Amino acid sequence: MNQKTSPLAPVLQPDLPVIAGVQLAVAETGIKYQDRADLMLVLLPAETTVAGCFTTSKTASAPVELCRTNLDASATKNEAVRAIIVNAGNANAFTGKKGKSSTEKVCNMLAERLGCSSTQIYMASTGVIGEPLDPGEIIGAIDDMVANLRPDIWLEAAQAIMTTDTFAKQATVQTEIRGKPVTINGFAKGSGMIAPDMATMLAFLFTDASLPQDIMQALLTDAVEQSFNAITVDSDTSTSDTVLMCATGQEKPGFQDANDPDLEKFRMALNALTRDLAHQIVRDGEGAEKFITIRVTGAENHKAARKIGLTIANSPLVKTAIAGEDANWGRIVMAVGKAGEKANRDALSINIGGIQVASAGEADKNYNEQELIPHMQGREIDIAVDVGIANGHATVWTCDLTHRYIEINADYRS
Amino acid sequence: MNQKTSPLAPVLQPDLPVIAGVQLAVAETGIKYQDRADLMLVLLPAETTVAGCFTTSKTASAPVELCRTNLDASATKNEAVRAIIVNAGNANAFTGKKGKSSTEKVCNMLAERLGCSSTQIYMASTGVIGEPLDPGEIIGAIDDMVANLRPDIWLEAAQAIMTTDTFAKQATVQTEIRGKPVTINGFAKGSGMIAPDMATMLAFLFTDASLPQDIMQALLTDAVEQSFNAITVDSDTSTSDTVLMCATGQEKPGFQDANDPDLEKFRMALNALTRDLAHQIVRDGEGAEKFITIRVTGAENHKAARKIGLTIANSPLVKTAIAGEDANWGRIVMAVGKAGEKANRDALSINIGGIQVASAGEADKNYNEQELIPHMQGREIDIAVDVGIANGHATVWTCDLTHRYIEINADYRS
Repeated sequence: MNQKTSPLAPVLQPDLPVIAGVQLAVAETGIKYQDRADLMLVLLPAETTVAGCFTTSKTASAPVELCRTNLDASATKNEAVRAIIVNAGNANAFTGKKGKSSTEKVCNMLAERLGCSSTQIYMASTGVIGEPLDPGEIIGAIDDMVANLRPDIWLEAAQAIMTTDTFAKQATVQTEIRGKPVTINGFAKGSGMIAPDMATMLAFLFTDASLPQDIMQALLTDAVEQSFNAITVDSDTSTSDTVLMCATGQEKPGFQDANDPDLEKFRMALNALTRDLAHQIVRDGEGAEKFITIRVTGAENHKAARKIGLTIANSPLVKTAIAGEDANWGRIVMAVGKAGEKANRDALSINIGGIQVASAGEADKNYNEQELIPHMQGREIDIAVDVGIANGHATVWTCDLTHRYIEINADYRS
Repeated sequence: MNQKTSPLAPVLQPDLPVIAGVQLAVAETGIKYQDRADLMLVLLPAETTVAGCFTTSKTASAPVELCRTNLDASATKNEAVRAIIVNAGNANAFTGKKGKSSTEKVCNMLAERLGCSSTQIYMASTGVIGEPLDPGEIIGAIDDMVANLRPDIWLEAAQAIMTTDTFAKQATVQTEIRGKPVTINGFAKGSGMIAPDMATMLAFLFTDASLPQDIMQALLTDAVEQSFNAITVDSDTSTSDTVLMCATGQEKPGFQDANDPDLEKFRMALNALTRDLAHQIVRDGEGAEKFITIRVTGAENHKAARKIGLTIANSPLVKTAIAGEDANWGRIVMAVGKAGEKANRDALSINIGGIQVASAGEADKNYNEQELIPHMQGREIDIAVDVGIANGHATVWTCDLTHRYIEINADYRS
């Protein structure tokens, strides 16, 4: 299948700086793809702390279970992460005991090669579900990768983990701790919220700041909640979703405790980075033609606001209306109603592209559909909904539902 | 838009018998449609009991609120239902105080005409959202309708309530109470689970049996749970979904209490009728090419089984795979995982069209995808999933997600 770059892709790829201590390598295994790198290795210096967030799926893949186990061990024993290895083309999900065994074999070999514990190795796999993953093809590529590590091949690394993605997803931010600059780099993959054949959401974040594991985990959980957990392409949840964050702390300042006054700046930088990557995933949504921002206010609490926002974002009727450039606000009312959260029907108001279309539970008196046409024809659609209960608010992001989504997922057999 | 009859429509319309005491009329108001009946009136004899189930939407329409209020009054004061009036083309939803006033005007006029209390009149409206409903156009048609009531125009009645439906939905069943035959007739509309522009699910059921309100409400709630609440076309919930059941008890036997031994037979007949109507709604799903039955077993309880079933049924990735005639069981695993209910990944088994595709958490050793091709190319797709926890089971029904769904909902502006 010839994949054209998404019309919503960023115009330029950012240039990611070196993060002291982080080294990257890629390789071609041919597990599924030909003539492209499909394996990625990150090596990290001793003392690197790690935090992670994973899919809530009850059928999580073998690599997700491995990461969870290792992260638990890291949190209790304060054990550093030494490597992350990621393959594209085979998700190693729903592969039974063979799946676990494949993951263990790769990690054991890598641990031996690096002289560390196998619990210091993290793995992620995405691609087809239900096919055994041959560990030999990955193990066979490790020596070459270790011999060819480089600190500056972020784009190559981001490309090596792609599956149905039409562009590589990278971001970098800088902030300061006690007047000294620190950097956070990140790269991600994902183009459906999930398509178990090929796609899944993965993100890897690296900073040169020094961060204790517990502080970093709290920061990451919070950042993921407002970014990767606030986007949806098709409401489907992967068996393999993984976000890992590593702090090398190489000759850089850091935080000792959660009350550090500089923590807030770092938190904002991290949130901006994860939001940027999350938006890039939506912009690569299968068949996406429009990037949709949905802001919900007036909900009972923030959680309720997000649920209402995601219900609007996941409604096929809302998504197809936007694909058809139709400001069909009745469908937004319907979606608010089905979210199951409190909403005051007679105080509900809806604003699209800065134009008030409904207020106090009725079509707005001054609303003229013609005025909305230029906004609906654009690439960026903004929807604001106030449900008139209390002060809960949330923003979520999605894309439209187009013929191309059906083509990608139905017309072509995997 | 020229609507071709769904390829999944029943070949023949059933011939509904007269239900003693039930009289029907239809009229053309031109509120939205031209050259077709769009208003339907049912008159019922004194002593007719009524039960109802409604949308769970938090933005329910004015007619739904009216029905809820009247049904509460009926249950506490044992008040009979005397008429049901249904218009097509305007949902009278999100119309603020005007909406409530329109509904009241219609019911007050009809109550006066029939010499009953306005709380004995029930109303349902489906069609566009957010446009005021002019009560005058409905009121103006009432005298003619009352003058032209007939007991045998079930098909006309079923057609008059249609919106985006491509065929009328009728069903009839007979059962016995103490050796004497009783009948239940029903008709319904709906083609998306909802499309607030035009579609919504409505069903009206009538029996000549004699049924106390509380017994009938319990029977109906149970029947709806296993039929209309176990289907999904696009996961969207209408502001107007309404099911009403009326028992005239004209010279017919009935039940005195909930322990009556004949109640079980009646329950089975009612469940068969509602399931039949629910299936017809799925068969008229927007763009549907395949009718999908999903049976979930081995869940923690029945509720968990249904949630897993509906999660599979609502997954755009599962629905598009079936549209593409692809037995993509990885997507079913993914959907089981995201349902949030307990599932034993390593005991999970999946059977499609009678062929075991996965067992004990892996692809089945004997599975040969070629054998499944004839089943996937058919109109009826059967999926059975066992999640390996306990004995909870449920069956849900849906249709595939095709290009035509996008066309109906995006390409044509409402």
